[in-house]
Amino acid sequence: MSQVTVTPQSMHFATPLKLQSGASLSDYTLVYETYGTLNADKSNAVLVCHALNASHHVAGNYADDQKNVGWWDNMVGPGKSVDTDKFFVMGVNNLGSCFGSTGPMHIDATTGNPYGANFPVVTVEDWVQAQARLADALGITQFAAVMGGSLGGMQALAWSLLYPMRLRHCVVIASTPKLSAQNIAFNDVARQAILTDPDFHGGDFYAHGVVPKNGLRVARMIGHITYLSDDDMAEKFGRDLRSGSYQFGFGVDFEIESYLRYQGDKFSQYFDANTYLLITKALDYFDPAAECGGDLTVALAKTRAEFLVISFMTDWRFSPERSRDIVKALVNNRRRVSYAEIDAPHGHDAFLLEDARYQNVVREYYNRIWKAINATGKPDAHGNLPNHSTPPGSAEAIPDSAGENV
Amino acid sequence: MSQVTVTPQSMHFATPLKLQSGASLSDYTLVYETYGTLNADKSNAVLVCHALNASHHVAGNYADDQKNVGWWDNMVGPGKSVDTDKFFVMGVNNLGSCFGSTGPMHIDATTGNPYGANFPVVTVEDWVQAQARLADALGITQFAAVMGGSLGGMQALAWSLLYPMRLRHCVVIASTPKLSAQNIAFNDVARQAILTDPDFHGGDFYAHGVVPKNGLRVARMIGHITYLSDDDMAEKFGRDLRSGSYQFGFGVDFEIESYLRYQGDKFSQYFDANTYLLITKALDYFDPAAECGGDLTVALAKTRAEFLVISFMTDWRFSPERSRDIVKALVNNRRRVSYAEIDAPHGHDAFLLEDARYQNVVREYYNRIWKAINATGKPDAHGNLPNHSTPPGSAEAIPDSAGENV
Repeated sequence: MSQVTVTPQSMHFATPLKLQSGASLSDYTLVYETYGTLNADKSNAVLVCHALNASHHVAGNYADDQKNVGWWDNMVGPGKSVDTDKFFVMGVNNLGSCFGSTGPMHIDATTGNPYGANFPVVTVEDWVQAQARLADALGITQFAAVMGGSLGGMQALAWSLLYPMRLRHCVVIASTPKLSAQNIAFNDVARQAILTDPDFHGGDFYAHGVVPKNGLRVARMIGHITYLSDDDMAEKFGRDLRSGSYQFGFGVDFEIESYLRYQGDKFSQYFDANTYLLITKALDYFDPAAECGGDLTVALAKTRAEFLVISFMTDWRFSPERSRDIVKALVNNRRRVSYAEIDAPHGHDAFLLEDARYQNVVREYYNRIWKAINATGKPDAHGNLPNHSTPPGSAEAIPDSAGENV
Repeated sequence: MSQVTVTPQSMHFATPLKLQSGASLSDYTLVYETYGTLNADKSNAVLVCHALNASHHVAGNYADDQKNVGWWDNMVGPGKSVDTDKFFVMGVNNLGSCFGSTGPMHIDATTGNPYGANFPVVTVEDWVQAQARLADALGITQFAAVMGGSLGGMQALAWSLLYPMRLRHCVVIASTPKLSAQNIAFNDVARQAILTDPDFHGGDFYAHGVVPKNGLRVARMIGHITYLSDDDMAEKFGRDLRSGSYQFGFGVDFEIESYLRYQGDKFSQYFDANTYLLITKALDYFDPAAECGGDLTVALAKTRAEFLVISFMTDWRFSPERSRDIVKALVNNRRRVSYAEIDAPHGHDAFLLEDARYQNVVREYYNRIWKAINATGKPDAHGNLPNHSTPPGSAEAIPDSAGENV
């Protein structure tokens, strides 16, 4: 399948953005990319939300950097599951990130120095507000779908709650309605590794010309373990030794050590430490049911979209049980939900990887969205597709799924 | 039940100990404690092996420090499961540890400086060799049982392979015949946190008057997450907030953060960084099946002891499946094995905690050992107890176990 060449765009917003914390950003820039063509009635727009270390660069490559392929290029593109010959797809770099949108490494106009530790803590809901402003500016009043995996799935879910009428479909993959204590624990250890690195300088390392590489490296290694399944790690690395025998020292003995250290080193060379802190906090804070006494069914009563929820059986970071919680709460609200539990070996990372069954589930779902767009031109005022036959309040089996369905 | 007051003892060994790595320790001291009385024919001795951060102080307290209670005091003592009114129980601090036995913080006679980074890498098998010399010195030719949890269970298993005739029973709790890639990965991240802490000074931090506290703290936090079950963490901490609302900063938001940071802080104040590195390496290297082409059945053919194997259902660090691998390999060799899988919620830590079913399993097993000692005075040359009715080559159900049995 062909790969598109894409050019990042940016938009500056001069109106202050009030954040969930009470702080506000006086002005900010969002960097984004688009793939495909927006149709005349603007009914074919799809917003793809990114996870922890990804960006607006969802698909395609750059004319001057052809090896720099988007993080979800196996999913989004001409003829792919999210077919950019049909849909107008957008990727937006989140506020606080380190790939172009305003973040801690940029100059705070009020001080003339990089924000550093002064960059405000941003939440999933803040990101959605910023994305909504960009949609406004592009004249997109309603997305055909908002979609994301992991932290991106949280943003999709937040869209369905903050702007129920602005998306017809919500695609939530390998995600969760909230982090568990164990998830938060892993995030906090990663943060502590960064915060206690002497090169972090309280977040103002830019001024010191250093980067808290050791802390970032350990943070990434911890994260990486949670992205892979135990079985997948056993299969790929097992107890394989780098040089055939024990070294009886603290260099590399096992292949898994070499792999993880490499991943940590690579990450620490391109990722911003303040961004890492901010994004893990956004993960920790996300909990839409909290304001409803912890009742997810009550929280999701606000939704109007139709949902596709996908989980992966070996994902122990955000296990299928968490996705089933979302599905159950939606079914309790008589929302239309399709749910697929994919039998893939790759743990949490599976949402980024090639898998025919997974990709077919997404393809079929988007085919259905596309047919509805063309059959009726527009959905009704509730975002429901008149030609869809699933009764509301039921979770529907996905034909290509190898997994079970709620 | 009464608590004994105990006094640590020490023994110096002037004969060099050849290590698995090829290096040797020219001389060394072992610190140990004993509880109960060795009987006339020395048939009631039990060796308890310790895990990562524990020591020779298995049970009881000290006259001058009554709050310093041994790490397995709920298991070992007068009238307890391992009844010191009947058995003579020994705890030995392992070489390389930081609780008295020769370790990296002690002076290397050849240089006049602390060993630091020069302390040789020690293995589970090396510890067994050192323990065997201590047993020799105390005139104990055969233990009634060698027992341990986690890394201590590995030592018990290593005893059954290195000195098959020197133990009549082998009690392996919450352990594994080898670490998985994921286990090694967690250990290596913890090591990297220590190794890259600027205060580590390549292992020679003693000379600099500092301690790599930040690295040790992160290492302990990572380890601690793997000791608890996801469910137990959810039950104890959930998403409880320290002060009732989000702080929108990088201090403490969630109770789990406060708990883990406290555990990390406490650990970094008393534990030695070089010891942490050494002990995690001993864990990583343990793999008795490796020299038998990975076939645990072939490896365990050397054993002569009778086994009690116990695992905990919520232990995801060393899951019940790993214990079942040991049991299966023993059954394949027609060894007598009792196996209990305890339905306790506390993850890997369960082996250290009070649990009536677990403690009864151990109590019944030691009662059986005790009856055999008294019925026959001595086991036969193969270490078999003549009054034991279980046919060899079968795994036996434990009456008080709530769990399933292989």
